[in-house]
Amino acid sequence: MLKKAVIVCDGVLPETGEISGELSGNVLFIAADGGGNRAREMGLTPDVIIGDMDSFIRAENETARIILDPDQETNDLEKALQFAACQQCLQIVVFGATGKRTDHTLKNLSVLRRFDPQFHSLLFKDRYSEISLIRSPFRAEFPLSTSLSLFPLSGEVTGITTQGLKYPLSGETLKNGVRDGTSNETCLKQVDIEYESGDLLLIVNLRQT
Amino acid sequence: MLKKAVIVCDGVLPETGEISGELSGNVLFIAADGGGNRAREMGLTPDVIIGDMDSFIRAENETARIILDPDQETNDLEKALQFAACQQCLQIVVFGATGKRTDHTLKNLSVLRRFDPQFHSLLFKDRYSEISLIRSPFRAEFPLSTSLSLFPLSGEVTGITTQGLKYPLSGETLKNGVRDGTSNETCLKQVDIEYESGDLLLIVNLRQT
Repeated sequence: MLKKAVIVCDGVLPETGEISGELSGNVLFIAADGGGNRAREMGLTPDVIIGDMDSFIRAENETARIILDPDQETNDLEKALQFAACQQCLQIVVFGATGKRTDHTLKNLSVLRRFDPQFHSLLFKDRYSEISLIRSPFRAEFPLSTSLSLFPLSGEVTGITTQGLKYPLSGETLKNGVRDGTSNETCLKQVDIEYESGDLLLIVNLRQT
Repeated sequence: MLKKAVIVCDGVLPETGEISGELSGNVLFIAADGGGNRAREMGLTPDVIIGDMDSFIRAENETARIILDPDQETNDLEKALQFAACQQCLQIVVFGATGKRTDHTLKNLSVLRRFDPQFHSLLFKDRYSEISLIRSPFRAEFPLSTSLSLFPLSGEVTGITTQGLKYPLSGETLKNGVRDGTSNETCLKQVDIEYESGDLLLIVNLRQT
């Protein structure tokens, strides 16, 4: 089985149960700096807290391993992902990388783009959605009428063809500022997506908000 | 004086005072669908509420002009911007276009990219920051040590040169997933930014969070 890491950041988090549900089994649980405070508030105990420690407030009875990484060229999520990669983790679930400050969200999406090739899977989860870069060809199953969006993460994605979506694409291009693919939904249980070039972001909405 | 429009969307909003402060003078005040509910909660009265009306709940004593635009090819912010453009507004301030759902944030940033050329200025404001596409050459004044970020909105921005920033750029390229420019700060009162090609997003943080 692939070794798994769960990372908690300082953005918008789902309910405690959604995080703890990912923590069963042989999981490395990492908090990225201020994410350590959030984990504690939720009654969760990370194995490791890593960052430049400009946000994390250490408790007296802290049991986690604290790793101070003062490098100002990398943000806290990058430090956590680097650590997970060094520990041979291949399946990564990141909570709270989005929401709140838009600059942090955009930076973390850029980090997703850069680190994705290092892992078997790298998934961002927040209160509203699950976010991942998808590789072509992509196939997955979702409940019928699941709301989802496709976005070109790095400007342009060419030659996109989908099956199982209400508004299908057939060899089309998504380009930021011109045509993007927001607000689609599944019309079959199985969804297939292929594309030719670019970085295609899939955002699956977990609930209506 | 340029005719101004203020648009309220359904994302993360700042305090009421920050919105009402933009409403003095000859301003067209537009709420984008569910933004109409938010405006009412804040005690603000839009001139116009526009959208496909899947979120706005009409009050019995509603005084705003309601414009139903059911087009599913455009989102509520696009409908509001189209209306503002038809009314010859040239200076646009948009509240609540970011935060909450990441797909909405990315879609609205794509809308910013597409509509920006139609206006003299188009600024997104949320609780944390002010967001705009900047045109080269750009010059503005900020308080010393203002935190700001530069991002390539459509994949890549080339030949960026800055003056007045703590971590200066000199003819460099920002590319999503490779190198972005988050977490810079001003070291002079006047900031100058030039670039050669691409869509350069400036995010100015209003406060530490």
